[in-house]
Amino acid sequence: MCDEGKKPSIRDNPEIRRTGESGIGMTRYVHGYSKREMRRLREQSAILSDLLHDGTRYEPGRRVLEAGCGVGAQSVILAARSPEARFTAVDLSAESIARAKAAVRSSGHAAGTFLRADIHALPFEDGAFDSVFVCFVLEHLDDPGAALRELKRVLRSGGDITVIEGDHGSCFWHPETAASRRVWECMIRAQALHGHDSRIGRRLTPLLRGAGFSVRRCGPRWVYGDALRPGLLDGMVNQIIVPMVQTAKERALAAGWADEAVWRRGIRDLERSGVPPEGTFFYTWFKAEAVKE
Amino acid sequence: MCDEGKKPSIRDNPEIRRTGESGIGMTRYVHGYSKREMRRLREQSAILSDLLHDGTRYEPGRRVLEAGCGVGAQSVILAARSPEARFTAVDLSAESIARAKAAVRSSGHAAGTFLRADIHALPFEDGAFDSVFVCFVLEHLDDPGAALRELKRVLRSGGDITVIEGDHGSCFWHPETAASRRVWECMIRAQALHGHDSRIGRRLTPLLRGAGFSVRRCGPRWVYGDALRPGLLDGMVNQIIVPMVQTAKERALAAGWADEAVWRRGIRDLERSGVPPEGTFFYTWFKAEAVKE
Repeated sequence: MCDEGKKPSIRDNPEIRRTGESGIGMTRYVHGYSKREMRRLREQSAILSDLLHDGTRYEPGRRVLEAGCGVGAQSVILAARSPEARFTAVDLSAESIARAKAAVRSSGHAAGTFLRADIHALPFEDGAFDSVFVCFVLEHLDDPGAALRELKRVLRSGGDITVIEGDHGSCFWHPETAASRRVWECMIRAQALHGHDSRIGRRLTPLLRGAGFSVRRCGPRWVYGDALRPGLLDGMVNQIIVPMVQTAKERALAAGWADEAVWRRGIRDLERSGVPPEGTFFYTWFKAEAVKE
Repeated sequence: MCDEGKKPSIRDNPEIRRTGESGIGMTRYVHGYSKREMRRLREQSAILSDLLHDGTRYEPGRRVLEAGCGVGAQSVILAARSPEARFTAVDLSAESIARAKAAVRSSGHAAGTFLRADIHALPFEDGAFDSVFVCFVLEHLDDPGAALRELKRVLRSGGDITVIEGDHGSCFWHPETAASRRVWECMIRAQALHGHDSRIGRRLTPLLRGAGFSVRRCGPRWVYGDALRPGLLDGMVNQIIVPMVQTAKERALAAGWADEAVWRRGIRDLERSGVPPEGTFFYTWFKAEAVKE
């Protein structure tokens, strides 16, 4: 596994095929591309790597496509857990692809192949991969079903797909005030404005079945923090949740869903849920494994 | 363990001390006492017994208080899992106590002791029990912290308490429509009208710590159903959730939170979430184990 060698079969050059970021696909990543957001994504994946990657390992030589790798938060974990698999990572953003490649390299693992490509029209032949891995991607797409059908096309018969997505409707905390619930709902609405479903986790089984996959397993991967796990509680609330909600502030205020005072109160109240002994926090992602029969 | 023998020490006769159902405590069980509700409680406990009771067994001779036994849905499971422990069950309702006693007897287990008593003022000496078990009770109390302090009083030093409570704010489903979310929220509001917290699951750790217990474990016990588990999905939605929501109908319509048409649509939409291949459903209870040090 190296960067230049062992490339998968490529139908045509994605750099030529997909230059604009308009049209279908994840054209507007709702949380933005700020440095703070990049740091948030890395911290999130460190906290969650065991929780989400448990059960996912690829054998030596297996051809694995990571679709929508972003800045490489999951790529680093995939490479560490399956050092001899042959990874190909694609993302719509050229800048993210460059960051992902650098992240995997600096982690000391062989980097695999990184390509800019649209998940809806992948530059690979039918059946080019043994496995597909998708994490935190479908929630940002206009038509996740179409993306899954395209991923099925590039998967060989008998190949498997692993999908991990969050569900922002699964989240609750204590103390839960009206203001903290409001800022949370603002984030869901901001994503819905783009036509994207941040509550997609609960839909993984019907989505995968609708795309023609045979679903083997699907279930929640949850995190719950309280005074018995103060480090986890603080990490969840202050490194993942609050920074993520903050990415919706500008749009929420512009849309009139909240004013500055409500926003400040909501964030302060959310932060309180990260403080023991009173605070508690629950969130669940969903992880599904399915096969192309 | 038998019904008449081996009674715990009794401070005074609860039949004399607590005759009215006014004042503090679970004076208005929000879901009512209809035959349908009794059946719902039994079916719920059958579906959930492994999920909720896993990890809970009591050794022979151990003196266990089940506080708020209701119609005995949990009492039957407790007796089956720990046939040689010495159970005492109390409830505020004389009718429920009679039903619980009959249910345990007809299940073929030795019945233990059944007493009508108020969880806030128990007719037992300090330290009378080795263990306390509380399931689906705190959510129906005006002051769950006061109840926990009273339970701590009747527990010996080193004794343990197990608390299981739901969290109605944890629930989500697919397809989730505005009407189905509305009827669900009506049920939470109906309970809140009584000053009771149906979202108490997330508060178990701070509540137990606030009452002076040392919390050893606390976490979600969830159920998730989809097309891969059609029986579980149907059981959850149609035997537990929809009948439970229906208990709030009268109050919701009287309060003007919904009209007949919205209610019908909401229930129909909730029922759809129980139908594969599209439907999915998630709910979590919380189970906590704590010690009186």
